[in-house]
Amino acid sequence: MRKVYLDHAATTPVHPKVLEAMLPYFSVKFGNPSNLHDVGREAKNAIEEARSKTAALIGAKPDEIFFTSSGAEANNFAMKGLVQANNQKGNHIIVSQIEHFSVLHPVKTLEKSGFKVTYINTDKTGLVDPTDVAKAITKDTILVSIMHANNEIGTIEPIEEISKVTREKGILLHTDAVASAGWIPVDVLTLGVDALSLSGHQFYGPKGAGALYVRKGVRIKPQIEGGVQEDGRRAGTEDVPAIVGLGKAAELAATDILNRKKYVSALRDQLQQGLTDRIDHLVINGHPTKRLPHNLNVSMWYVEGESMLLFLNMQGISVSSGSACTSRALKSSHVLVCIGTDAAVANGTLLLSLGTGNSKEDIDYVVETLPPIVQRLREMSPLYEDMIKKTK
Amino acid sequence: MRKVYLDHAATTPVHPKVLEAMLPYFSVKFGNPSNLHDVGREAKNAIEEARSKTAALIGAKPDEIFFTSSGAEANNFAMKGLVQANNQKGNHIIVSQIEHFSVLHPVKTLEKSGFKVTYINTDKTGLVDPTDVAKAITKDTILVSIMHANNEIGTIEPIEEISKVTREKGILLHTDAVASAGWIPVDVLTLGVDALSLSGHQFYGPKGAGALYVRKGVRIKPQIEGGVQEDGRRAGTEDVPAIVGLGKAAELAATDILNRKKYVSALRDQLQQGLTDRIDHLVINGHPTKRLPHNLNVSMWYVEGESMLLFLNMQGISVSSGSACTSRALKSSHVLVCIGTDAAVANGTLLLSLGTGNSKEDIDYVVETLPPIVQRLREMSPLYEDMIKKTK
Repeated sequence: MRKVYLDHAATTPVHPKVLEAMLPYFSVKFGNPSNLHDVGREAKNAIEEARSKTAALIGAKPDEIFFTSSGAEANNFAMKGLVQANNQKGNHIIVSQIEHFSVLHPVKTLEKSGFKVTYINTDKTGLVDPTDVAKAITKDTILVSIMHANNEIGTIEPIEEISKVTREKGILLHTDAVASAGWIPVDVLTLGVDALSLSGHQFYGPKGAGALYVRKGVRIKPQIEGGVQEDGRRAGTEDVPAIVGLGKAAELAATDILNRKKYVSALRDQLQQGLTDRIDHLVINGHPTKRLPHNLNVSMWYVEGESMLLFLNMQGISVSSGSACTSRALKSSHVLVCIGTDAAVANGTLLLSLGTGNSKEDIDYVVETLPPIVQRLREMSPLYEDMIKKTK
Repeated sequence: MRKVYLDHAATTPVHPKVLEAMLPYFSVKFGNPSNLHDVGREAKNAIEEARSKTAALIGAKPDEIFFTSSGAEANNFAMKGLVQANNQKGNHIIVSQIEHFSVLHPVKTLEKSGFKVTYINTDKTGLVDPTDVAKAITKDTILVSIMHANNEIGTIEPIEEISKVTREKGILLHTDAVASAGWIPVDVLTLGVDALSLSGHQFYGPKGAGALYVRKGVRIKPQIEGGVQEDGRRAGTEDVPAIVGLGKAAELAATDILNRKKYVSALRDQLQQGLTDRIDHLVINGHPTKRLPHNLNVSMWYVEGESMLLFLNMQGISVSSGSACTSRALKSSHVLVCIGTDAAVANGTLLLSLGTGNSKEDIDYVVETLPPIVQRLREMSPLYEDMIKKTK
């Protein structure tokens, strides 16, 4: 049976060249970067090289990059660390309603501890209107966090326009680029952001390695405290192999990003067209054009996302019914709720996310396999039968 | 030239069997454990197996183990998480003065936010007196944190006796077992602790994997918030290969711990005797018997630790002048200050930490190499010359 992995938004395999770069750092060049002897210095040099490569991917300077263990940690670090270090300037935070939970939950904790939060709505395509951000700003606003691209529906937000507003008012702007970095060009200067999160395993790097960009001069309070690692901003012995892997993945992405984008978006368009042609009542979520190239999020009436997922799994096809981070929570997506998707159809959602390892034949296979599954499941649904009766 | 790595307290190489166990999880079994399809489930099963193995090393149940990215993160999680989740019971914390900075710094942050902290002194061998803990307890005490073994001087604390005190009073007890786990038997039930931190790379596991044991029923507030990973206690895509590696390292340690302890303590005794015989004014820091089997922390008058470190490095020998986590901070060790080491001699400290990869011949080489270096450096010291003159 053909195996088709269409869940790159959940995680990607480590690229062979990335693993090759990491391998020496487990058992041979295994030093602790804090050590002053040669074994330690070798490890220190490796993480500094990775820092340069990671910085280069997003147009930052190496000393503006702080390694974390994940995108979630980077988002937590940004929200809590920026707010705690700048709370003398005010107590108001602005985020969009479709942020990842690793932004929303720390913000909720800050809200419980006394900060005021404005949750900005989006339009039906998931776009934040920069005017709404401008309107929400008060004299107490210290931080705005709007994601670069949404991890579920793929919508790419107008960060450049939002940053014009925040820069003018002297307010910090963070963007969660976990879903976008490595897939579309990301440049911190063009975006105009003060902080940006990314995650290695989202673009063929290893799990266990994320990074937070913090613009030179911006104050941030460490969240993992102790040793003087990461210029005193994040304690804990550095995960050298994972950091080396992130650096290599960043280097590969930087070199290849336009090809990668072109390749996966062609496959995505093939998939979208194929499914649209074969499945009635198919809703494409997210923005039609301002969308991540590897993202296809579709909702279908009269069928459960999880049932489709399990049937596809039996056919060797791996997809998600939404964000991996909450798939075990069995709640409907807050992103789909925000863009106004009807709860009934939101339950029939699949997130199909493509990668460079997918082929046209893979897509053909999915386009052949999914529609009959949907049809079979719909026929089992009492609601569907009702509808058929009504339309007769 | 012979290469001798005597800095296992800073980090250990990943054991070949550990790396072998990890390898499939980078590019082949690369799934996100949160996913419901087979690729995800394979990863989920792998981390649950690692959880069982990690639990077994310390006599815990699997669902009492929460994976973190490091020992430092586990310590931060314990201090902030336990205090924040139990602050309705009081606002007083007790720690020893010789805790690792990843305990002391979060405690300092809690202190700044209004909590009261008592910093317990130790005796000259680094031992905490359980009576001092009992005396420090007030009606407002909610958490005591005393490390299982000190990472610099190796002294093993009387946690069993301390837990009798805390249990009787219904106060939570955390112990930082980062330096001890994998080297001496650690059993959470025997120790009587409510929480315990450990770190994989301290005992032949990978960097990037630590764990916090939290006794069933004890409340803890997540510090990295977002997804529902780790039973909702710690968000972020799990670092599957690192977690699998930690599990394997725990399994190897559990099987081999008594041999490991015997082997390294014999080498340590050989090293201690050899250096004592050949170097005048050698001070052995820490407790003479209640000490980690692989730890030798020595101070020497009229010589700088860092100079010795660099000369040894030129001879292929890797050692530290203290804790790796603060070696780049260039401050004298707070642990040596606490046990009353004279500042002048504290500056001449070396931390030699052994491992299972060291041989008797390695130790012979160090015993031959270090004394002439010390002698040469002492002869260059004006203070030493003064002393020689005075004694003439």
